[in-house]
Amino acid sequence: MENGTAAEKWQFRGNEVLKTASAITIRGVLNEVMDNIEESGPRPIIPLGHGDPSAFPCFRTVQIAEEAIVDAARSAQFNGYASPVGIPPARSAIADYLSKDLPYKLSPDEIYLTIGCTQAIEVILTVLDCPNANILLPRPGFPFYEARAAYSRLEVRHFDLLPEKGWEVDLNAVEALADENTVAMVIINPGNPCGNVFTYQHLEKVAETAKKLGILVIADEVYDHLTFGSNPFVPMGVFGNIVPVITVGSISKRWIVPGWRLGWLVTNDPNGILRKHGIVDCIKGFLNISSDPATFIQGALPQILGKTGDDFFSKIVNILREAADICYDRIKEIPCITCPSKPEGSMFVMVKLNLSLLEDIKDDIDFCAKLAKEESVVVLPGVAVGLKNWLRITFAIEPSSLEEALVRIKAFSLRHAKKQ
Amino acid sequence: MENGTAAEKWQFRGNEVLKTASAITIRGVLNEVMDNIEESGPRPIIPLGHGDPSAFPCFRTVQIAEEAIVDAARSAQFNGYASPVGIPPARSAIADYLSKDLPYKLSPDEIYLTIGCTQAIEVILTVLDCPNANILLPRPGFPFYEARAAYSRLEVRHFDLLPEKGWEVDLNAVEALADENTVAMVIINPGNPCGNVFTYQHLEKVAETAKKLGILVIADEVYDHLTFGSNPFVPMGVFGNIVPVITVGSISKRWIVPGWRLGWLVTNDPNGILRKHGIVDCIKGFLNISSDPATFIQGALPQILGKTGDDFFSKIVNILREAADICYDRIKEIPCITCPSKPEGSMFVMVKLNLSLLEDIKDDIDFCAKLAKEESVVVLPGVAVGLKNWLRITFAIEPSSLEEALVRIKAFSLRHAKKQ
Repeated sequence: MENGTAAEKWQFRGNEVLKTASAITIRGVLNEVMDNIEESGPRPIIPLGHGDPSAFPCFRTVQIAEEAIVDAARSAQFNGYASPVGIPPARSAIADYLSKDLPYKLSPDEIYLTIGCTQAIEVILTVLDCPNANILLPRPGFPFYEARAAYSRLEVRHFDLLPEKGWEVDLNAVEALADENTVAMVIINPGNPCGNVFTYQHLEKVAETAKKLGILVIADEVYDHLTFGSNPFVPMGVFGNIVPVITVGSISKRWIVPGWRLGWLVTNDPNGILRKHGIVDCIKGFLNISSDPATFIQGALPQILGKTGDDFFSKIVNILREAADICYDRIKEIPCITCPSKPEGSMFVMVKLNLSLLEDIKDDIDFCAKLAKEESVVVLPGVAVGLKNWLRITFAIEPSSLEEALVRIKAFSLRHAKKQ
Repeated sequence: MENGTAAEKWQFRGNEVLKTASAITIRGVLNEVMDNIEESGPRPIIPLGHGDPSAFPCFRTVQIAEEAIVDAARSAQFNGYASPVGIPPARSAIADYLSKDLPYKLSPDEIYLTIGCTQAIEVILTVLDCPNANILLPRPGFPFYEARAAYSRLEVRHFDLLPEKGWEVDLNAVEALADENTVAMVIINPGNPCGNVFTYQHLEKVAETAKKLGILVIADEVYDHLTFGSNPFVPMGVFGNIVPVITVGSISKRWIVPGWRLGWLVTNDPNGILRKHGIVDCIKGFLNISSDPATFIQGALPQILGKTGDDFFSKIVNILREAADICYDRIKEIPCITCPSKPEGSMFVMVKLNLSLLEDIKDDIDFCAKLAKEESVVVLPGVAVGLKNWLRITFAIEPSSLEEALVRIKAFSLRHAKKQ
């Protein structure tokens, strides 16, 4: 019959590369963890798995931003197609916003609007896709880089972030891994998943190492300005004179609106090296055959970047600081997990599982699955970000829920502790 | 110095495939044409080059749609990340909306939200990228397909649309072009760039031909329901029982909001053939490692699709019908261009240049360049859509401006006519 006979002769197949590239994603692993939750459970589910606190009232975005969207939508001035690189007022607004933290002024031509930071990463990993090229990625890291590199057929080589050194880059490893086919290294600052903030001195060393190796630095600063410890946020672009830097960022985290899908790719390259090597033309080429962020959201950007008051930013940072403190202190009371350093930025902390103290927990995935089932608390297994038998915990939730979640994690750990 | 010495040793290069893939785009060709316009010209520039009438007051979108965006943005319910396939209420709304025109009911699971129709095309051409695979595209067509196919390393084979048959597909050519590596054929209905609308009978023949060849049909219906002639719009999905159909569409054209970047990919496949052949998993895989449409625009979709009244749709269709009539009648008065058939859908018409009647016009590009320079009227050279020495004219502008544009084109043609 129809289906049967037809099945034999259809000639199309699914793209194998896509299957591999999309095999491991944070969303995928979290869904597996959450499949263990008993929906009918008496207690609310507490999500410590992903970096999106937008659902919590205390993290609601600033009204100025919502109204900027409303005004842009009602103006009917932004219903049409935008330029593939972004509309000029939005590019200028981002140039001004980012230049405040740089020793030189960015030109609007150095700003490319993207569909969240996600598309900015997609752009640069596609642009760098050349035969035999390899790229250096941090471990632990953000698996979207591995996915896009696999899809772009870029060979991935991992350098470690060192927990005993506040998650600094192992620069010796970077030098050892690089060869004549290495094109770039990625740093994420403030750190996802580690919650660390790199010092000026360390970033300068990163720049000098990259220059020595002849590779560019991709600086993922999607958590820019979300810092609440001793190290201030320093944009990698500060070192654009030493090495060409591609900065990717967005309004997703600082304004707590990841769903608005507005990000940017910036060429921090005062010496014009990226242009000379065809990278700039390729970025434009990619954007010419890709989709753009909604035009009216671009139209709202000058208002959003220009009018948001420091009171909103400090409110968010203060909540994150309080949450990070709670997280760090409570974790100290839980024997089977240890936190190498107190988070000072972003929305995450990495903690090490000590399985020898646990009775019946096989590994990090098993820990998270059982925790979800027994306590309705969702935590990301470290294996999803490259560190097996660690956990990535998001503290960016309502502090009272965070307290409750850590009480449940402690109870879970004691219940599963080895009897001495 | 810095730049000089550095230039030698930098190891990164731009992706060559991207350069080829993005070489020909409508935006690119239009920009070249527009470079000829003397900005200081006394008369307003009249854009007949692209399908985006959103800037004209008479084409302003319906207020219900703008307010749906406003409500979604202010609700703060849609600031977070969406599921990679789209939020459930939006998928359901699209399923209901499209099912009205189908003999079976679409399930929300068969709907995938995309960033405009653009990303939907990107999805399917990426999913079909397999070694040695080829795809059949219409000529004239929409060059974005050629660009994405080149980027996906899909070999492109062109079949003709036949002007003497109202731009129907040359099905004999389709059969002659296909081989065991052919995976799909693309049809665009209502037609871009031809302004034709396929009959039920012709679409059925397309389905039977594709079934015979064992290939799927990609139905680009971004101009769905924008028909104003004798043929009603028939979705290709009607024939999903004969052949698996991937439908791509969006709210861009019917609601005149291309800048909102909200589209969809739909699997019209009652026999589950696409699922069986791994296409569905690959679509999900692609979306897992791509960016999504803004969540609050997804949140507004049920209102937009459910509440827009027929009065708005008929107003738009009536303007387009009037504009198409003006376009067709005035073109008859211009000796050097002929229109094989009156447009009955979409926003475009293809007209043939008779260069033998012109004094000093080399080809379609030359015609458009000089027209832009002398008359400040922008028209797309046919070569950009695959037909050299034809022109693609958009009639989707304010009718009075269209009248004025055609007066200028006539004056231009007479001025350049060969002296008999």
